[in-house]
Amino acid sequence: MPLVRISLRQGRTPGERTLIADGVHRALVETCNVPKDDRFQIVTEHAELIYDPAYLGIGRSDGIVFVQVFFRKGRTVEQKRALYKRTAELLGEAGVRPQDVFVTLVENDAPDWSYGNGETQYAKAAPS
Amino acid sequence: MPLVRISLRQGRTPGERTLIADGVHRALVETCNVPKDDRFQIVTEHAELIYDPAYLGIGRSDGIVFVQVFFRKGRTVEQKRALYKRTAELLGEAGVRPQDVFVTLVENDAPDWSYGNGETQYAKAAPS
Amino acid sequence: MPLVRISLRQGRTPGERTLIADGVHRALVETCNVPKDDRFQIVTEHAELIYDPAYLGIGRSDGIVFVQVFFRKGRTVEQKRALYKRTAELLGEAGVRPQDVFVTLVENDAPDWSYGNGETQYAKAAPS
Repeated sequence: MPLVRISLRQGRTPGERTLIADGVHRALVETCNVPKDDRFQIVTEHAELIYDPAYLGIGRSDGIVFVQVFFRKGRTVEQKRALYKRTAELLGEAGVRPQDVFVTLVENDAPDWSYGNGETQYAKAAPS
Repeated sequence: MPLVRISLRQGRTPGERTLIADGVHRALVETCNVPKDDRFQIVTEHAELIYDPAYLGIGRSDGIVFVQVFFRKGRTVEQKRALYKRTAELLGEAGVRPQDVFVTLVENDAPDWSYGNGETQYAKAAPS
Repeated sequence: MPLVRISLRQGRTPGERTLIADGVHRALVETCNVPKDDRFQIVTEHAELIYDPAYLGIGRSDGIVFVQVFFRKGRTVEQKRALYKRTAELLGEAGVRPQDVFVTLVENDAPDWSYGNGETQYAKAAPS
């Protein structure tokens, strides 16, 4: 149930972008009970991203990656905490500095998803 | 009150993109009580979109269209269900396969909108 | 804690875009207790944006700027009202007509943010 938006600067290779997208998805699977094949991601490259280079004492660079995850309510704080940690680890394997991994979540509900065919896969129909 | 983000792959004609945007809006008007002239949409084309080609048994293709609707709380599950069904129907008229219509919703509140002029059109000011 | 998405049409100069992004952030700082260095913004230029030119009696133009702010719950309606007013004022200094300033907010919670290093800066860890 996630829709994930990943925003990064131009200049990374296609292979690096793939590793980043793979890492974000794998972290969701490993920490947040996301099915392995429930993968929907929109990656956008930008000429410029605006970020503070030191907020909260974290030294960010132009390598910053913004990850915004939209998914259903239900993950615990501990799952979210594990998600951030694992995302940073896996993006490290893609050459992203941990300081440059910015993640934020937006939650909605089961009836807020249609995966295709005009159906509401996660919400039962009202009895007729 | 909707702000709608529509993400699709490069390669569709301007006419097809217009039909898609029109269909998404018309579905909102017909099923979710959105005023006809309450239309605000951001359409982005992408060199690549990442999607699972079979999750939940739905056979998706590169023709996938991600529709993300931000609007105020208040629609029922039945309205949302009708929205997905009608969106898939209308996008079919624009040449999009029903399997490729992916819709997700994010809700907020009346005070979360300013339609211009620095005003908060949907929330009354506190008595002075 | 905000992540801000700003969407505008192609054609503005880099200087104008900077003034717009600066104005949006300054309005958040002045009205919503956002720390001055808590600035994270994604600005995208579009060949076309779809908007109603008259909804709610507001005469919009191609100069429309969509501002979408994702931040933590906690601002009052009066703070949001002040945010819209101040954003329109400051974007006026960047050459944006007040009618063309469209702002919408999405709120989440403290554990929904990681500012880097794989950490959950705004939520305390559970006692071990």
